[in-house]
Amino acid sequence: MNKTYVHGYNHRENLRLQDQAATLVELLHSDTFYPAGSRVLEAGCGVGAQTISLAGNSPNALITSVDISGVSVTEARRKIAAAGFTHVQFEQADIFNLPYGPDAFDHIFVCFVLEHLARPVEALHTLKNHLKPGGTITVIEGDHGSAYFHPDSEAAHQAIQSQVELQRRAGGNAMVGRELYPLLRSAGYGAIRVSPRMVYVDSSKLDLVEGFTKKTFTAMIEGVRESAIQTGIIEAQVFENGIRDLYRTTEPDGVFCYTFFKAIGNK
Amino acid sequence: MNKTYVHGYNHRENLRLQDQAATLVELLHSDTFYPAGSRVLEAGCGVGAQTISLAGNSPNALITSVDISGVSVTEARRKIAAAGFTHVQFEQADIFNLPYGPDAFDHIFVCFVLEHLARPVEALHTLKNHLKPGGTITVIEGDHGSAYFHPDSEAAHQAIQSQVELQRRAGGNAMVGRELYPLLRSAGYGAIRVSPRMVYVDSSKLDLVEGFTKKTFTAMIEGVRESAIQTGIIEAQVFENGIRDLYRTTEPDGVFCYTFFKAIGNK
Repeated sequence: MNKTYVHGYNHRENLRLQDQAATLVELLHSDTFYPAGSRVLEAGCGVGAQTISLAGNSPNALITSVDISGVSVTEARRKIAAAGFTHVQFEQADIFNLPYGPDAFDHIFVCFVLEHLARPVEALHTLKNHLKPGGTITVIEGDHGSAYFHPDSEAAHQAIQSQVELQRRAGGNAMVGRELYPLLRSAGYGAIRVSPRMVYVDSSKLDLVEGFTKKTFTAMIEGVRESAIQTGIIEAQVFENGIRDLYRTTEPDGVFCYTFFKAIGNK
Repeated sequence: MNKTYVHGYNHRENLRLQDQAATLVELLHSDTFYPAGSRVLEAGCGVGAQTISLAGNSPNALITSVDISGVSVTEARRKIAAAGFTHVQFEQADIFNLPYGPDAFDHIFVCFVLEHLARPVEALHTLKNHLKPGGTITVIEGDHGSAYFHPDSEAAHQAIQSQVELQRRAGGNAMVGRELYPLLRSAGYGAIRVSPRMVYVDSSKLDLVEGFTKKTFTAMIEGVRESAIQTGIIEAQVFENGIRDLYRTTEPDGVFCYTFFKAIGNK
C-alpha cells in the first residue's frame, strides 16, 4: 500500500485524524459502548485516534487494539496511557493473520480501515472467525462520493476525485461507506443495520466549519496535493481552484455536506 | 415555466408524488404540527400530496393552501375533502401576489416549491410579508446532487443530470435542498435551523426499495426520458443505461442514498 499519502502515516495527518475524532466523536461513537468484562477487538487502530473514544465509552470492557504498523501502535499506546486508560492492550498485528484463536472476542470494532483494504470482504470474513457466536461487529467508514456543497464547484469535485483515485491506486476505496451493507452481507454477517451519519455544515455551525470542513475534510484533500499533481491525476491549477472552492463553502452563505456510515452486524 | 415535464402536472407524476408522500411522510412531516387555532399558509400545494400530511398532523389549525395552477387546486381540494378534512381552505393564487394582507399567517409551510422557482429568495421574502412577527416558515426541498448509490454508474449520474438540466432550463433548481440556509438568510429570516433527512436504502428495507428508489426517484428520472432525449441533453442509450443502473441499485447488494432538507426560520 502506498503510504506516502494515506492518512494516518505522517504528523500532519495524525493531527487531522485527532481533530476529526474530537469533532466527530459524538456523531460517530456516542452509541457504541460495550458491557463490563466483554472482550473487544479494535482491528486497525492506527495512531489511536478512535481508540480514545472507544476506551472512554466502555471503561470496563477489555479492549485489544491492533494495527499492522508498529510505529502507529507505539503512538497509540502512548496516547492511551497519557489519557490514563489501563484497559486497552496493544499489539502489532495483521488483520488477515491475527494471533488470536477462534471466538476470542465478544465484539469487534473497525473504524476507517476498510477504505484502505483491497479485499474488505475477506478482512471482514477473517475477523468473523475471531468473533464469538452472537457477538457484534461495528464498522464505521466515510464516503468521499457523499461530499457535496454550495456553491457547487467542478474543480472541487475534481480535487476530491484525485484523492479517490490515489486511494484506489493504493488498493483502497474512498467511497466504501455506502457499501457497508453488501460487504457485511458478503462476509456472512447477519442482522445488519446501517446508520448513515451525515455531517451538515452551514455558517451557523462554527465548530463544524472549522473542525470539519476546514481542518478535517479540506485538509485531507490538501494533503494529497503533491501526489495528485505529480502523478498527473489532476492539473495543478484545477487542484488549487478546487481547494479554494472548498474553502469558499465555509463563507457565510456556504454549505458543506458529508456522510459517514456506521454498520453493525452479528455473527 | 416548462410544464411538459415538471412533476405535479400529469397523472403519472401525480401518482408518483402521492407514492412519495406516503413513503416519506414520516421522514419529512412527522415533526411539523401547528397549534389549535393557528393560521397556516401552505404556499404551493400542487395537487395536495403534502397537504394531506399537513392537515392530518395539525387537525385544529386553520390551513390555507394555494397554488398557481387552478387544475392542481381543484385536485387538491377534492383529495382533502375525500379524506374528510374540513380545516383546509384552497385558493388559486401566485406566491408573488397573494390576496392576503401583511401578518396574515402565524406559520407558513413550503414543500417542493422552491425547486421550481427562478427567484426563490424573492419568493421567501414576499412570503415573509404575510407572516406575523415571531411566526415560522418551514421549507422542505430535495437535492438531486445528493443522490449516490452502489454499484456506482456514470450513466445513472448522467441520467439524473439530464433531469437537473431540464429543470434548470425551466428556471428551477433540482439541487436547491443544500441551499436552504443561505436562501432563508438572504430573505431575512432569523433563527434558521436546517435538518437534513437522508433516505438510505439497502435491500433490508424492502418498503423503501419499492416506495422510494423505484417508484419515487427512478420513476421521476424516467419521467423526463422524452424531454431529455429530444432536447439532446443526453443520448438515448446513455439514458437507458442510466435507468437500468438505477434499478440495479435495488438488487440484494445494491444501496441508494438521497437527502431531503428541511429548514425552519423565524420572522
